[in-house]
Amino acid sequence: MKSLVLEEKGKLSLRDYPIEREEPMGPRDVRIKLHTVGICGSDVHYYTHGGIGVFQVKAPMILGHEASGTVVEVGPEVTTLNEGDRVCMEPGIPDPNSRATRMGMYNIDPAVRFWATPPVHGILRPTVVHPEAFTFKLPDNVSFAEAAMVEPLAVGVHAATKAQVKPGDIALVIGAGPIGLVTALSALAAGCARVFVSDIDDRKLELAASLGPITPINVAKQDLTQEILKATDGWGVEIVLECSGSPKAASGVFDPLCPGGRVVFIGSQVHDIPYSVGKAMVREARVEHVFRYAHVFPRCVAMLSSGAIDVKPLITRTFAFDESVHAFEVAAAAPPGEVKMQIELPQ
Amino acid sequence: MKSLVLEEKGKLSLRDYPIEREEPMGPRDVRIKLHTVGICGSDVHYYTHGGIGVFQVKAPMILGHEASGTVVEVGPEVTTLNEGDRVCMEPGIPDPNSRATRMGMYNIDPAVRFWATPPVHGILRPTVVHPEAFTFKLPDNVSFAEAAMVEPLAVGVHAATKAQVKPGDIALVIGAGPIGLVTALSALAAGCARVFVSDIDDRKLELAASLGPITPINVAKQDLTQEILKATDGWGVEIVLECSGSPKAASGVFDPLCPGGRVVFIGSQVHDIPYSVGKAMVREARVEHVFRYAHVFPRCVAMLSSGAIDVKPLITRTFAFDESVHAFEVAAAAPPGEVKMQIELPQ
Amino acid sequence: MKSLVLEEKGKLSLRDYPIEREEPMGPRDVRIKLHTVGICGSDVHYYTHGGIGVFQVKAPMILGHEASGTVVEVGPEVTTLNEGDRVCMEPGIPDPNSRATRMGMYNIDPAVRFWATPPVHGILRPTVVHPEAFTFKLPDNVSFAEAAMVEPLAVGVHAATKAQVKPGDIALVIGAGPIGLVTALSALAAGCARVFVSDIDDRKLELAASLGPITPINVAKQDLTQEILKATDGWGVEIVLECSGSPKAASGVFDPLCPGGRVVFIGSQVHDIPYSVGKAMVREARVEHVFRYAHVFPRCVAMLSSGAIDVKPLITRTFAFDESVHAFEVAAAAPPGEVKMQIELPQ
Amino acid sequence: MKSLVLEEKGKLSLRDYPIEREEPMGPRDVRIKLHTVGICGSDVHYYTHGGIGVFQVKAPMILGHEASGTVVEVGPEVTTLNEGDRVCMEPGIPDPNSRATRMGMYNIDPAVRFWATPPVHGILRPTVVHPEAFTFKLPDNVSFAEAAMVEPLAVGVHAATKAQVKPGDIALVIGAGPIGLVTALSALAAGCARVFVSDIDDRKLELAASLGPITPINVAKQDLTQEILKATDGWGVEIVLECSGSPKAASGVFDPLCPGGRVVFIGSQVHDIPYSVGKAMVREARVEHVFRYAHVFPRCVAMLSSGAIDVKPLITRTFAFDESVHAFEVAAAAPPGEVKMQIELPQ
Repeated sequence: MKSLVLEEKGKLSLRDYPIEREEPMGPRDVRIKLHTVGICGSDVHYYTHGGIGVFQVKAPMILGHEASGTVVEVGPEVTTLNEGDRVCMEPGIPDPNSRATRMGMYNIDPAVRFWATPPVHGILRPTVVHPEAFTFKLPDNVSFAEAAMVEPLAVGVHAATKAQVKPGDIALVIGAGPIGLVTALSALAAGCARVFVSDIDDRKLELAASLGPITPINVAKQDLTQEILKATDGWGVEIVLECSGSPKAASGVFDPLCPGGRVVFIGSQVHDIPYSVGKAMVREARVEHVFRYAHVFPRCVAMLSSGAIDVKPLITRTFAFDESVHAFEVAAAAPPGEVKMQIELPQ
Repeated sequence: MKSLVLEEKGKLSLRDYPIEREEPMGPRDVRIKLHTVGICGSDVHYYTHGGIGVFQVKAPMILGHEASGTVVEVGPEVTTLNEGDRVCMEPGIPDPNSRATRMGMYNIDPAVRFWATPPVHGILRPTVVHPEAFTFKLPDNVSFAEAAMVEPLAVGVHAATKAQVKPGDIALVIGAGPIGLVTALSALAAGCARVFVSDIDDRKLELAASLGPITPINVAKQDLTQEILKATDGWGVEIVLECSGSPKAASGVFDPLCPGGRVVFIGSQVHDIPYSVGKAMVREARVEHVFRYAHVFPRCVAMLSSGAIDVKPLITRTFAFDESVHAFEVAAAAPPGEVKMQIELPQ
Repeated sequence: MKSLVLEEKGKLSLRDYPIEREEPMGPRDVRIKLHTVGICGSDVHYYTHGGIGVFQVKAPMILGHEASGTVVEVGPEVTTLNEGDRVCMEPGIPDPNSRATRMGMYNIDPAVRFWATPPVHGILRPTVVHPEAFTFKLPDNVSFAEAAMVEPLAVGVHAATKAQVKPGDIALVIGAGPIGLVTALSALAAGCARVFVSDIDDRKLELAASLGPITPINVAKQDLTQEILKATDGWGVEIVLECSGSPKAASGVFDPLCPGGRVVFIGSQVHDIPYSVGKAMVREARVEHVFRYAHVFPRCVAMLSSGAIDVKPLITRTFAFDESVHAFEVAAAAPPGEVKMQIELPQ
Repeated sequence: MKSLVLEEKGKLSLRDYPIEREEPMGPRDVRIKLHTVGICGSDVHYYTHGGIGVFQVKAPMILGHEASGTVVEVGPEVTTLNEGDRVCMEPGIPDPNSRATRMGMYNIDPAVRFWATPPVHGILRPTVVHPEAFTFKLPDNVSFAEAAMVEPLAVGVHAATKAQVKPGDIALVIGAGPIGLVTALSALAAGCARVFVSDIDDRKLELAASLGPITPINVAKQDLTQEILKATDGWGVEIVLECSGSPKAASGVFDPLCPGGRVVFIGSQVHDIPYSVGKAMVREARVEHVFRYAHVFPRCVAMLSSGAIDVKPLITRTFAFDESVHAFEVAAAAPPGEVKMQIELPQ
């Protein structure tokens, strides 16, 4: 069986890779046969640019980190998983002895090893060895495809948790890409009465509007702040969730925010953004910043299983594993209306 | 037009009552023509027992405090409401100058004047004068019947807010009466992946189970803690919401609770309950207590309008106003399966 | 008796002003004879520049808003104050019916009327009428001079409250002016084990170091982040309190911050600042912004009385009222080492 | 060298114990030569009663868990400690893989192994092997005696942290024993303007009153609630910290509590206590429960070093190690006025 290897910037191969024979099992590890893997913007960016910030691809690296699969081997001290269990996996493994990890904030432990982040390999390959603690059993009613959505969903749920949504809050999600949409779903699940989603892509906004009590705003045609203030009797939204990564959008987060409101920055920014301390002050705004997620995978699985969140409408296309290189070419072209593309591995 | 007057314990009349002519309008008040009024357990208790604790009925008193209606007159300084607006009303009016009110906790201001709490009259009558600040305009898609459910719903939403539900939490609601059910709906809306509801009435549990991802537990037949631990891999629930008012149930809140979990006491208790400090300690439980609600009416209206919460299945019976005395006789008999009964006033 | 009137930009007079005869007493008001008034940077800025942002001096205005005095008359509904009581006063009066005020956030009610902010007069004058709710009785062991420090101290205490200091936190306060120093004292009183204070003025840093477990850092000579990381084993400080108003300092708040740390912006910024979303993300920083204060005056009085905070060392100079114009000239020159200057009115 | 061994209920010996030769060093462990050990009420209770609840002494056990000492050996992967470092140690070692520990709540991990809790030995012995992660280096200005106070102090600091003290809060600490006094000091350090301490022992109350802005209340002579309400203009205290373990005191925690106040249960209770849900409700009280502490040892060390907290006045008597048996006899007699007794080991 083969793996999807990013040989160097712009060059992908589907080929044998020796990693399988290198991976030893620890006593609390499980070995997982991969089933479904989602394509993330970061995977595509490594493919098209050869790196992200300080993380540069200097040697062939297997891509993929949004994954579900089946347990095929369990270590001797594993207690919660059995061979044959369907699972999804958290792609980052922290140092359990680091100060941040011991305080419960393992996601911001600088020593985290994260799949498909150089020099750590991803999981578009036959099997992977992973710690039991970061492998989560799926209920029967959660499919492999939904389970491979848990990773991006976790970002939205973590952000909604940080936002400390109170029941009945009104939120604005800036950006209708995959992260924007999972964040909108998370905000609704977390208690929002209604969510505004802003973008410039009408097809994505149309999809957003179909997901629940979501009001789309096309900022190419409408004034975001005016629309929000009009819809909230001049008060503003309690929560702004910035998922676009656009510097201009990020600089405007306070305009539609109500007194005492909260802002969460979810989208990355390459450069410093202009930030209005004055606008934040007169509202006594609280601003949170999230980095991936912590402790939310089992929560996401539970919400998918109960129906509290439905991610299926976000999966817009599925490829067979032997079409993987093509799948990345399609993803790199960023076709309008496409949200989440996934790859199914041979079973 | 007539009012429903509790003349004394056990004696109700539908008769003219002079209050209408006594009520002056302040500049920030509105006059509301009542449309729908829910029957609350406290109304029934005043009828059957003549008092609740220190609040004793010593003179004829109009009943009812769960209400919706139409604005028929507005004071000169009112800015957010107009004649003809459909509205629901918060039944307690605090002293705006009290220390608690100024801190935002107006519900625990001891000076609150609350409808149908002696000596303050309720609103089973033609019209009432009420402050604009506690009168909330209804969107077109929220009916008068739903709007009259906002008052009990507010209790559940306030409790879920105090519980600081995080997305994906699992909760247990003890008691499947009206308050238990609105609390279960609120807990789900506030982010719970799943809710257990316990009671001894199979019909109420059946209704509960139909409302969403709710697992009923009949404590007359099942061991509550064992069921919870089995369903949560021995971890327990993150949140316990005690709505039964049963001393036995209230004493057992820590048994099914996970480490770091939260308990909210919503149901009243006549006497002290036995409380296990030790069980609370080994979990570092946080225990909250709620008294009515504050700042949640507009949130409830928004959630009803967006579909985040649907209270319609809880309204099990509606009476015409001229059947009011009969309605209270029915309510006093507490027929099995009956959840919320309402009275519609002539328009 | 005279008032200190800012006739126009750059021109102060000590003269009769008719306001005394214009001020009616409401039933819950008190009349206060002023005793001590602190000179705030904003007073000086109105004097030297004729305005701050949208607030421009278009007519003669009495200056001063940091005040203590003695009650000389009480309205008929006043219950907590009596003639002869020594008091300090909160200078902003919100609209009690505004949405923000009702939620307990009266400081961010846009309708607040604040002393010495055009067109509202300040209190460098014989007497003032003020609501009982914003007038606070002084214990015998709190002097008029200390009481006139409550206003700036309240800014620091409010900021320390927003920072949610946990016992044993380490904080950095940027800026050793009056607000920086009261914030450092507040952070220590709120639980910090130790506070770093940074500035470029050695005399102010020397004063800071004398106030408690405070480590001064002169950023003209030392690398702030390096010093902090060295002193905290590379972890960083839990809290950064930005009091300098310097855009450069404000842009660097995340560098010395630990994972999971909190930042509070206290100093105003005229323009947008460059803001590193990336640095905030990898720490999952929480950023708070404060606007004046709410509900902290009685807390400040209690801490001054108990000795939890001692502001006396910050009062570096006191002027008689008839030297007021001179006092403002001195303040405008910003002599090194001067922290808080006050004016005593004739009694 | 000898150890202090509880052979069985009521029988202590100072004798050789083979544990020293049994203890292997892990790569992240250090070996510590003990210097000072405090006598805790639990040590005394094992001596006088042979057990506490489910923890029964069934085999000889070394006592002691409040300890400081000197590192004499370091494992190969230890990075933060060196031979010769003066240290204090956290006595409980959790399972790093447990769910509670990974969430940062290691203190409520049921698998914690805690010194001098059967069958785990304590540290009244020459040396002990301990994980680096739970061993904390002392600054030069923190003595071994103060360092051996960190363990009980940590209880108070953890409780004050859970209480979420805001600057200027007023607290009541019930009980003036060692835990009551460290809790009072912690509450002051955490931001309280003033603390009331209640007890029935005048000598302990006198000591309490000498420690800072602490008002003693002898509940054998004074009505606790009346005194509190009188001193707070009828409002009550923001925080009640129950440290007495008395069922009667624990049942009365809500009476002196203000609206919106918080209660922390710190003292253990053998039996269920009577609990007034009604009194808690009308105040919307928040009740927290603490179990030991988590993440606070380094905070305590920092506060002792900076002078934010001074525990020296609480150390009322020091014994040489060869007087250990006598020391326990004295402790068992509970002489009035005695707070913390310590034992110094030979160096």
